[in-house]
Parts: sequence; structure tokens; C-alpha cells
Amino acid sequence: MVDILHRVGVVAPIDEVYNAVATAEGIAGWWTNDTVGTSAVGEKLVLRFGDVGGFDLEVLELDPAGHVRWRVVDGPAEWIGTEIDWRFDRRGEYTIVLFGHHGWQEPVEFMHHCSTKWASFLLSLKEFAETGRGRPAPNDLRIGDWH
Amino acid sequence: MVDILHRVGVVAPIDEVYNAVATAEGIAGWWTNDTVGTSAVGEKLVLRFGDVGGFDLEVLELDPAGHVRWRVVDGPAEWIGTEIDWRFDRRGEYTIVLFGHHGWQEPVEFMHHCSTKWASFLLSLKEFAETGRGRPAPNDLRIGDWH
Repeated sequence: MVDILHRVGVVAPIDEVYNAVATAEGIAGWWTNDTVGTSAVGEKLVLRFGDVGGFDLEVLELDPAGHVRWRVVDGPAEWIGTEIDWRFDRRGEYTIVLFGHHGWQEPVEFMHHCSTKWASFLLSLKEFAETGRGRPAPNDLRIGDWH
Repeated sequence: MVDILHRVGVVAPIDEVYNAVATAEGIAGWWTNDTVGTSAVGEKLVLRFGDVGGFDLEVLELDPAGHVRWRVVDGPAEWIGTEIDWRFDRRGEYTIVLFGHHGWQEPVEFMHHCSTKWASFLLSLKEFAETGRGRPAPNDLRIGDWH
């Protein structure tokens, strides 16, 4: 099993960064504007990216002290059953975001793509929390032929 | 052992992307403008990032058909002994870059940071190969408190 790991520092209060990840409205500001569902433990968030499909995420953990965790219950085959983990920690003027997308079966080419794409969405999250304006799909950064 | 993996698609010929990685002049266009040394198998590339330090890379492989490999011989303790692998492949209008930074001992917080930072440098490489203008240090994107 292999993991995608990332870290960014956001110049914004921890609760603002937490809310950007812990609510459907927040997620719509940096990941995809087509985000619906209920962000509560045991409930589902439903994210779509136009014709490309999307992800259904079961919320496993929501701790405003600095932890959010999801399980992917629908989406691309490689994603199903993987877990996405967010930790938020305050250091100086930064809220540090430690991100992990755990449980990939194999380091396939699609995982390489998702790793880079996650980085671009984390930078979108940073921008969203700092300025109020992220780059959610369909206005996300195109990083290659797989978008 | 854990790996950092990334993938970008660059709208440029494969030899241009290869040269951006396989020569010191190329690297200076997207990673750090303070890149010197000799890009030949068995020789060393020396990259510096101002006061922050840098990396010495031994060139292990240089294949214009689409493969470059380095071993880190000096730099941060976590980097020493790790290997950095580049594969280039043509698909449609894109040169696909498959990147791996292999052999990290532990998934430490610094590795999370380096994973995101690598993504931003790969996007800088993409920009450099497509437009002639990347974002090498000291003009690289600041992603957090660790720069």
C-alpha cells in the first residue's frame, strides 16, 4: 500500500482552514464547485467534476481541534476504499495542513497524477483560505492530458 | 521506505523536456537558478537555494530516449541516499513526465513538504518547457513556513 502525502502552510486561522475542509460549502471553494451532501460523521459528501465523474466520501471523523477523515465509497476504482486524512495545526502565523491519501493498492500512473493534482488543490485551498478565492473545478489548473 | 510520485503533461517536444532535466542550464530554468556542475553519468550537479542550503546530485543515468536518474549525495539528512527518477514519454501533443523520489526512510513531516514542493517545481518545469519561463528559486512559489 502506498500513500500520497502533502503539507502546506496557510496564513489563516485554524478554524477557517478547518471549515474549508469540514463543510460542503468550504470544499466548493477550492476542490469542485459541484459539492453537495452532508458533512457529518457517517454521512456522505458527493463531489462531481462535470463529465469526468467524481467521488462520494463517507465522513469518518470531524474534530474542530484539527482533524478530518474521509473514506472514499464511490469514484474511480483505484480510489474506492482509500482514506483521506487532514490534520491542522497552528504554528506561528501559519495553519499547517498535513494531508494524507492512504491505502492505494499500487503506485500506478494514475496515482502519480492524483498526487500532483492533490498538490494543486491544496494550493487552491491555501489561496481560498487566505484570499476567499480558490481554484475549484471547473476552473482548476490543468496539469496534463488527464486534466 | 516511502516514495514521492508525480505526473505532469507538458505541451513541448520530448527533447526539450529532457534537456530541461538533463542539463544544468535546463535545471536552472525551473528548480534553482544556482545550478552548476556537470550533467554526465558519474559526475555531479550542485544545486543551491541561498542560505537554505541545497543538494549535490550524482548522475546515475542519462538516456535521451526518456530517462534520467540521480542519487542525492549531499543535502538534508533525509535526502541523502535517496534516488530521483524521471521518465519522459510522448502521448499525443503531450510529453508525459513520470517522476519518483524514492527511498525515503520515513514519511516524516519534511517529506510531506517536499512532496508538495516537488509538485510546484514540476509545474514550474512544465511552464519553463512550454513558455521558456519557469519559477526557479529564488522566485519559487512559497507553499508554507518551510518555504
